[in-house]
Amino acid sequence: MASRKIDQDKDRRVQSPAAEGRWQTALTSITPNKILIRGYPVDEMMGRLSFAEAVYLLLMGELPTPSIGRMFNAILVSSIDHGVTPPSTMAARNVATTGAPMKDSVAAGILGFGPHHGGDIESCMRFLDNGLAMVRGGKKLQDAANALVEECLSQEQTPPGFGHRFHTRDPRASRLFQMALELELEGEHVPMLRAIERAIEARKDKFGRPMPVNVDGAIAAISADLGFDHELGNAVFLVSRLPGLIAHAHEERTRQTPMRQIDPKDHDYDGSDERRLPGNRK
Amino acid sequence: MASRKIDQDKDRRVQSPAAEGRWQTALTSITPNKILIRGYPVDEMMGRLSFAEAVYLLLMGELPTPSIGRMFNAILVSSIDHGVTPPSTMAARNVATTGAPMKDSVAAGILGFGPHHGGDIESCMRFLDNGLAMVRGGKKLQDAANALVEECLSQEQTPPGFGHRFHTRDPRASRLFQMALELELEGEHVPMLRAIERAIEARKDKFGRPMPVNVDGAIAAISADLGFDHELGNAVFLVSRLPGLIAHAHEERTRQTPMRQIDPKDHDYDGSDERRLPGNRK
Amino acid sequence: MASRKIDQDKDRRVQSPAAEGRWQTALTSITPNKILIRGYPVDEMMGRLSFAEAVYLLLMGELPTPSIGRMFNAILVSSIDHGVTPPSTMAARNVATTGAPMKDSVAAGILGFGPHHGGDIESCMRFLDNGLAMVRGGKKLQDAANALVEECLSQEQTPPGFGHRFHTRDPRASRLFQMALELELEGEHVPMLRAIERAIEARKDKFGRPMPVNVDGAIAAISADLGFDHELGNAVFLVSRLPGLIAHAHEERTRQTPMRQIDPKDHDYDGSDERRLPGNRK
Amino acid sequence: MASRKIDQDKDRRVQSPAAEGRWQTALTSITPNKILIRGYPVDEMMGRLSFAEAVYLLLMGELPTPSIGRMFNAILVSSIDHGVTPPSTMAARNVATTGAPMKDSVAAGILGFGPHHGGDIESCMRFLDNGLAMVRGGKKLQDAANALVEECLSQEQTPPGFGHRFHTRDPRASRLFQMALELELEGEHVPMLRAIERAIEARKDKFGRPMPVNVDGAIAAISADLGFDHELGNAVFLVSRLPGLIAHAHEERTRQTPMRQIDPKDHDYDGSDERRLPGNRK
Repeated sequence: MASRKIDQDKDRRVQSPAAEGRWQTALTSITPNKILIRGYPVDEMMGRLSFAEAVYLLLMGELPTPSIGRMFNAILVSSIDHGVTPPSTMAARNVATTGAPMKDSVAAGILGFGPHHGGDIESCMRFLDNGLAMVRGGKKLQDAANALVEECLSQEQTPPGFGHRFHTRDPRASRLFQMALELELEGEHVPMLRAIERAIEARKDKFGRPMPVNVDGAIAAISADLGFDHELGNAVFLVSRLPGLIAHAHEERTRQTPMRQIDPKDHDYDGSDERRLPGNRK
Repeated sequence: MASRKIDQDKDRRVQSPAAEGRWQTALTSITPNKILIRGYPVDEMMGRLSFAEAVYLLLMGELPTPSIGRMFNAILVSSIDHGVTPPSTMAARNVATTGAPMKDSVAAGILGFGPHHGGDIESCMRFLDNGLAMVRGGKKLQDAANALVEECLSQEQTPPGFGHRFHTRDPRASRLFQMALELELEGEHVPMLRAIERAIEARKDKFGRPMPVNVDGAIAAISADLGFDHELGNAVFLVSRLPGLIAHAHEERTRQTPMRQIDPKDHDYDGSDERRLPGNRK
Repeated sequence: MASRKIDQDKDRRVQSPAAEGRWQTALTSITPNKILIRGYPVDEMMGRLSFAEAVYLLLMGELPTPSIGRMFNAILVSSIDHGVTPPSTMAARNVATTGAPMKDSVAAGILGFGPHHGGDIESCMRFLDNGLAMVRGGKKLQDAANALVEECLSQEQTPPGFGHRFHTRDPRASRLFQMALELELEGEHVPMLRAIERAIEARKDKFGRPMPVNVDGAIAAISADLGFDHELGNAVFLVSRLPGLIAHAHEERTRQTPMRQIDPKDHDYDGSDERRLPGNRK
Repeated sequence: MASRKIDQDKDRRVQSPAAEGRWQTALTSITPNKILIRGYPVDEMMGRLSFAEAVYLLLMGELPTPSIGRMFNAILVSSIDHGVTPPSTMAARNVATTGAPMKDSVAAGILGFGPHHGGDIESCMRFLDNGLAMVRGGKKLQDAANALVEECLSQEQTPPGFGHRFHTRDPRASRLFQMALELELEGEHVPMLRAIERAIEARKDKFGRPMPVNVDGAIAAISADLGFDHELGNAVFLVSRLPGLIAHAHEERTRQTPMRQIDPKDHDYDGSDERRLPGNRK
């Protein structure tokens, strides 16, 4: 909605440039030869914080606990890539095939994180909060979840955070929930998601196809329990998938002829066979 | 350059769709309920690899050693943000003030990683390789470095990877070199950069201002020693700075009035005072 | 909203690639040595249709009448540039100062056509349609307009299509309305906008500042009367402003030093003095 | 190249904010209730200049003659769309299928105007200027053209501005040349392009496939003769193709299911049959 608050607007339009004074930022302090990220010297962070922990610090303002640090690393790993078929990946590859610079491919890919793709995290966070508002209004958890699912069915909508094009059980979601449980990071959003999962299972005949919790749903619930607001929950997916966009743009440029017609369905995987992490890895 | 190889072109233009056959990707294998990143199940990676290690795996094809994993985490932390003044950050904030979605701000910011900003890493990698080509051609290391610097001076160019708008000594570069040394990850590019540093010092009167190694130079030399090719070296900066773009776009949307006129010079920092990481942190 | 219709979704996910069959496009037919835009040979259009008329044909599917052609040319001219202060222009200049290619500056500028800027056309079209729905429901025109304005006041919102940062009377809006009248192209949306204008005037004390119809409002009403749907109404602004983004990016690259800190308030105009079109011009 | 002139750089880095003074723009003057584009009141331009003429004025600084106005309208019409197969169009459609806003699709499409696509205009302008430099150095026109073509052959490159994926004779190029001739707008670039065309014809066995002048070549030669510099010549294509990107993004959103897998080869045209412009049209 384009309209603005009248007062806010009046403020903005009427005040003279001089009266505007200066504006504030609380993220990073830059002085000669010193860079403080949320108060911490960046050179002190290097080598002592993982990148994921530094991202958490920058976005949330405080250091994560070690448990949250492990959880957030896993969240970022979970969506790092999903092969060639996502439209965002296709957008990146279509830009790469024209010989455009890497950053252009990546920007085009990010623009493809639309409401139906990536944006699902934000939708799911709102969906869970709607359920929790019912609970705070007196409804029991499962009743609230059932009500949410009935509303989706009556509007013929799939519940955000559920269902997947390829997977009937999303291995990333399962692993995220297992870690949240072990690290004792569950709040009220994960149980709400679980209740919705049960409500969907009870009505599975109505959906006509498997409707598993997907990775977006798991990230939404756990990010909400970690205190991320909706907009930043969505941004988590951006950070996670960026390396995937880079890798596909780079592969397109180095393995394919320029200006080709790219059919996302017409490909084969010729990479490494399945392998296991060495046992001593963490 | 827009021209293309005739043969490549002929291929592309002449072949019928049927003859094209299928195309290949070696990054990620997607089958129902299983996602393999370079052969490793993503759910197995979660909790066992840091995000930075997973990025390295995806881009380079193999797991990093623990030392490389630490180094790569530090590289990604080093450029996570640099306050409000970079033009890329200003592009992101100018898009955010129009009420556009987060991802639009981020994409605009990424487009601002032009040749003069971010792109310096790729330029520096080429610069170092030029020097190393001279060494392989028989020149001594310092002579090659001196020749590179003289060429810059004769063209009135600043050497890529050197000089900074705000800092006379870049604390991020120093820390990266210290870690590369301690983790025994120096190859031939770091010594070449060091030799160029000495060559610049010897001619410092000609530059007229301090010309310290900057963080781009340090990332360029170390990434090259880790085996990153030029395009991916540049992409490292994209991954690193993305959270900064997100944080600024989010702050713009949550702390400022919409449609404001943003002067990058006209701001104050009102965030956390300087503080130290707790002693038990790694 | 990220959710999708269940059936649509089922379709999409369940169907096999083979069953998908082929997809259709009705815009442009390409066969060897022949290009038909909505059925017309493009080489026949060249020299006989103005660019604006060709844009109308491509977007709407049929040739404009000569009157509509004149109107649409004027609409596109109206928003061609608005100086350096719009945030979209600032985004384009901030990308240009990094040395990025022209198209990157332009793309960043387009991303700055957010809900508060450019997007106002779409909001205003919906606003007018809300009023017309009341009229169709039995309300008199002015009563419907009054009701819309009261609702804005009760929510402390400015009516979309009204008010301007710099102008108390928008010369572009006046000219567009004059042309629509003379060319007899007014439908029901222009009168609705005029009624809203009167309703605002009657309540001007409540708004606390001048609230003239702006160019977005005029484009919205006239585009709606020409039959553009909401999304395309918005796109009209994209076509119109693109040359402005190009001109600013080009000026930034050719007149300014790279990597500068750009303050939108801190500039002077040093271009041509005011001049008049030659009398024989149309 | 990321390096900068030392002096320029010193300037930029050393000067204090106060000393920077103000910056200049010569494009558009904005004062309350008055908007001057290159000195002309925009409301006076509306209805008297076609959009293409206004674009020319904004980019070039002066009004086009009526002949140049007709030529520039035709240039902009020539590349308005080329069906679904260009990678830029595919990038726009892949973003549209995710539910992203129109402007995001358009921005992604613009990012696909890479060196191999759209960027060809700039390359061809440089190519022609290389030939003209030889002529100014004393070579005869055809000898210069022959030399350019031989150099392409020796490097196995296709000459920029020649060859097409679909067309063996590009109807847009022919029409543009016909108009430039009739309107007496040929300068030295068009004859140079024609000489290159003859040189290619004489060596056609070496290219192994038809290598007609394409629309990029024609735009490059004529734009250069009109006085556009290289960067703006390229921008002409941006203005021309933007409506095509909009039309495809809109069609994708209104005719197709979201999140589909888009194969550029797998489509049919179901639009209007071929038809002719009414005889009274200009």
